[in-house]
Amino acid sequence: MALGTDYARQDCSLARALEVVGERWSMLIIRDAFYGVRRFNDFLVHLGIPRAVLTGRLRSLVAAGVLRKEPYQQSPPRQGYVLTEAGRELWLPVHALARWGGAHLTEGGPRMLFAHASCGTRLDPAGACPRCGAFVPPEDVTVREGPGADPALRRDPVSRALAGPHRLLTPIEPATE
Amino acid sequence: MALGTDYARQDCSLARALEVVGERWSMLIIRDAFYGVRRFNDFLVHLGIPRAVLTGRLRSLVAAGVLRKEPYQQSPPRQGYVLTEAGRELWLPVHALARWGGAHLTEGGPRMLFAHASCGTRLDPAGACPRCGAFVPPEDVTVREGPGADPALRRDPVSRALAGPHRLLTPIEPATE
Repeated sequence: MALGTDYARQDCSLARALEVVGERWSMLIIRDAFYGVRRFNDFLVHLGIPRAVLTGRLRSLVAAGVLRKEPYQQSPPRQGYVLTEAGRELWLPVHALARWGGAHLTEGGPRMLFAHASCGTRLDPAGACPRCGAFVPPEDVTVREGPGADPALRRDPVSRALAGPHRLLTPIEPATE
Repeated sequence: MALGTDYARQDCSLARALEVVGERWSMLIIRDAFYGVRRFNDFLVHLGIPRAVLTGRLRSLVAAGVLRKEPYQQSPPRQGYVLTEAGRELWLPVHALARWGGAHLTEGGPRMLFAHASCGTRLDPAGACPRCGAFVPPEDVTVREGPGADPALRRDPVSRALAGPHRLLTPIEPATE
C-alpha cells in the first residue's frame, strides 16, 4: 500500500478505514462486489484496471478481511471474491458516497439508483427506505441505471447486467470467459 | 489529480465522488474541516502532511466546491478554509467510514466518539441519534476521544482540543501561530 508512513500517525478511525479502502480503486472493487461481481475477469473488464493492480488490490482487501475467496466453479476449480461480514458493513459509506457524487458531481442526475427491493422506493442518503422507514441491508437493495447514466459509455457484460434492476450481492453470471 | 484516465471510464456516481474526495489525504482534510480546523498551519500540524501536498489538496477541494476560503483574521488579513454546503453533506459518508474503521480496525475500541450534542447519545452508524430517532446534522454533533485513543500519539494543539467534547464545525482557535 502506498499511503505513506505519515498516515500511520493519524490516531483516527477514519484514517484506519482509509488505509484499507481509501487506496485508489479499492472502493470501486468493493462497489463491484456489492453489485455481485465475483470473478477476476469480470472485475478486470468492468473496472478497466491493469491486471497487476487488480491482483494487488484484491490481495490487500482479502488480507484486511473485507473480501474472502470463494469457489464459484468445481471443474475446473475456480475461486472468486465475495464480501465478508465486515465488508458488507461498508455498504453504508459506499452508498452515502455514491449518493453524494450523484447529487453534486454528475450532470443529468445520478448514474445509478438504489431502491428497496420489496417496495421499489429509492433509498434516502442514509440508506434507509423513506416508505418503510428502516435501514435497508444491501441484500434487499436493487440497483438500476439512473437518468445520468450514459449507456454508450459502458458496454461490458457487467454494465449490461447492471442496467437492472439487479439485486445487490446476487452473483452476476459469467460473461467474460 | 492522479487517479488515472481509466477512472474516467467509470460511469458511476461513486467514481465521481472518489475523484474529488478519494485522493490520498483529501478525506482527512475534510474530516479536519468538520472538526473546525480552518488555518493552513493547523491542517499542516494536525495531519503531518507535506506543505506542498496540503496546498495542492486544499486547492483541489476548493475547485471541486467542497471547501471555500474564508477570512479568519482582519489584520493582517488571513484566509482559512471552511466546508461549503456540498462539503457539509459529506458528513454522512465521513462518519460512516470512520464508524466502520472504529468497529473493525482499531484495537481497544473507537478512537473518536461522535454524539448528539443535545442529549449526549452516541450516534448510530447511519449518523442518527438512537435516542431522538433523527439524523443529526454535523453542527449538532460533538466529538471526543474514545477508548481506543492513544493520547501519547498526538500532542499537537488540534488533537488536544479534540480530546473534547468539541462541537463539530466550531472553529478550533489558534494554537500554532
